Amino acid sequence: MVVARGPQPFPRGEYLRRIALVKSEMARREIDAFVITDQHNITYLTGYTALSAYVPQGLVISAHGEEPAFILRRQDAIAAIYQCFMERDKIIAYPEALIGNPETDGYDCIIEYLEENCLARRGIGVEANSLSVQAVEKFRKRLPAATIVDCSAAVTWIRIVKSDLEIEVMRDAAAISDAAILRAAEVMYPGVREVDVAAEIYATLVRGTHGKPGSALEYINMSSSPLIGTSHLTWSDHILSNGSQINLELGGNRYGYCAGIMRTYSIGRASDRLRQVHEVQVAGLEAALDAVRPGRTCSDVANAFYRTIEKLGLKKESRCGYPIGIGWLEPTASLRDGDVTELKPNMAFHLMLGNWIDEDFGYTISETIRVTETGVEVLTKAPRKVFEIS
Amino acid sequence: MVVARGPQPFPRGEYLRRIALVKSEMARREIDAFVITDQHNITYLTGYTALSAYVPQGLVISAHGEEPAFILRRQDAIAAIYQCFMERDKIIAYPEALIGNPETDGYDCIIEYLEENCLARRGIGVEANSLSVQAVEKFRKRLPAATIVDCSAAVTWIRIVKSDLEIEVMRDAAAISDAAILRAAEVMYPGVREVDVAAEIYATLVRGTHGKPGSALEYINMSSSPLIGTSHLTWSDHILSNGSQINLELGGNRYGYCAGIMRTYSIGRASDRLRQVHEVQVAGLEAALDAVRPGRTCSDVANAFYRTIEKLGLKKESRCGYPIGIGWLEPTASLRDGDVTELKPNMAFHLMLGNWIDEDFGYTISETIRVTETGVEVLTKAPRKVFEIS
Repeated sequence: MVVARGPQPFPRGEYLRRIALVKSEMARREIDAFVITDQHNITYLTGYTALSAYVPQGLVISAHGEEPAFILRRQDAIAAIYQCFMERDKIIAYPEALIGNPETDGYDCIIEYLEENCLARRGIGVEANSLSVQAVEKFRKRLPAATIVDCSAAVTWIRIVKSDLEIEVMRDAAAISDAAILRAAEVMYPGVREVDVAAEIYATLVRGTHGKPGSALEYINMSSSPLIGTSHLTWSDHILSNGSQINLELGGNRYGYCAGIMRTYSIGRASDRLRQVHEVQVAGLEAALDAVRPGRTCSDVANAFYRTIEKLGLKKESRCGYPIGIGWLEPTASLRDGDVTELKPNMAFHLMLGNWIDEDFGYTISETIRVTETGVEVLTKAPRKVFEIS
Repeated sequence: MVVARGPQPFPRGEYLRRIALVKSEMARREIDAFVITDQHNITYLTGYTALSAYVPQGLVISAHGEEPAFILRRQDAIAAIYQCFMERDKIIAYPEALIGNPETDGYDCIIEYLEENCLARRGIGVEANSLSVQAVEKFRKRLPAATIVDCSAAVTWIRIVKSDLEIEVMRDAAAISDAAILRAAEVMYPGVREVDVAAEIYATLVRGTHGKPGSALEYINMSSSPLIGTSHLTWSDHILSNGSQINLELGGNRYGYCAGIMRTYSIGRASDRLRQVHEVQVAGLEAALDAVRPGRTCSDVANAFYRTIEKLGLKKESRCGYPIGIGWLEPTASLRDGDVTELKPNMAFHLMLGNWIDEDFGYTISETIRVTETGVEVLTKAPRKVFEIS
């Protein structure tokens, strides 16, 4: 044994707690094995964050064993031994000859593992939303005695309620987000290219803050006048000048967990329109925060925002956010009208109030928040203002 | 019209050329419409690079029209108007109410577009490998009179041969890659954290070189002793010290096109083992480059490498690379034994010779190359050496 398990972000008991939740869901769905292929769900259940999900790999949870088995390509097995909480015999490497091989691939190895472990004649859960149609078909065809059950999003729904340990990591991610928002204000000035601002933001997201580096990069979305009506451009070589408005969305990352934040900047004094929109949006943000507490629904929070800004003369068409954690957006609930998902303590959301109002005008503000026992904790702490660069 | 089309990386004729190639493939497969959902294929056919692929969107190519139609969420439509080569009436926005909506989503809008444009009763191509099983099922169910044909990878195979214009963009991407490799050597020293080196590399990848900024970030893979037997870790807070070896893989990006490169670094003099492995691997690299020319196969190139290093006492288990372009790896051919894909002029590959030999020892070297009329052009130009940091 040359490479041993490295420092872990969470104690073993935390992973076993998460696996117990998955097992109880497996019992409910009457499956004996669950093949998890969504890379963020694998991170959640093992600690593994290396970037190998572009080739087949899968985590197999058996109803009968304590630790899951992680089946991945040989080249990535050492990183798994280093990062995963499991014992090293639970890291199962498949040969490199299966990469780019049109006949046999890593999914065949997962199927063989299921057969060898007597899991091939019962209910087997798969995540069809992270598999190709061909891969799902392979599971059905090669495991004719088993019942293949699509359990897409089952683990993602478990992830929506965080442990205190996870929230602590997200606080660290949020501190990195705040540092990057403040750094952006320091490096903007008339004459600078957007891209140079982006470079400094990324460097901050990597270096982290308070001695805690970022663990991975999340893409930033940055736009400046006249493109501030767009939401998902990265950056350009536009030169900022007096009067430029800049909309920015970014997120720090710790151990895979992300905390998103949006702020708006102005080179020189903010325009009257920007000031007015900012005031209305902050009023809406405060109303939304006031609406957060256990027992309320996602819809309640969204409508608190919508109703407040409508009273003040503004509308927002898009949703008001989504659950956030590993890999940024967790595709489960939405902070939108009609989503009756009930808020529970330690759910975390990106309360995303970006508002792309006209073709050439938008405004961005957001916070990463946690539902507490009695209300809300805002994890991101950067000043809730338009940053005016003088 | 407030936001107009922005500066384009390629002339209109280049996009029409690409679309003509797709249409000829459509004719071969007897389909009248092709719904393209792979984000890199959408970039290839439109110029769109904004980061909106986490929600449903699709480009519809009709056998009968010149320009394709891009159907995406309202919030992203302005970025599409700005980035795509098509006229603005070909950007079709669907309402925000469909985001996070369990009943109806963007795919329903694509289906309605097909119906409204009389494409719902014929052959329709989809990319099943970039769609969930549920989405494919929706196409089949809601378009009962059509024949749904899985055309996964059809466009990706077209992308494998680049135009001269694309190669020119990849040269610019490769220059950024080279700059980042050299910058890494400048910022490594005993006592520095891996993460601080990573921050400088990312800043360089964003700023670009020769006045041409990076257009997007590609993840870097960095590992240092004793984890140099791993291939896909990002970075850690390990402190580099005398004797540390660092393996690095990174890629510059221009307009979505990427050029990958790997190099190995040593703090202080390289160990004898590292020097020996480097010499063998460079000999293998040169043999592989010598083997590149039109008419040879992917297998020929890989075997030139394998045979050369085997003669010199080394083995490599993993493949020797893959086609590269938009979004880094193009999942089509592989530089591996037995892959008889024939090399053609202007195919581009990441000749990836990273070799993870022991659990605690690996070595990385690679180049991004182009097949020429008579041989090979190496796009990446950083010195082909172990960077010794004194």
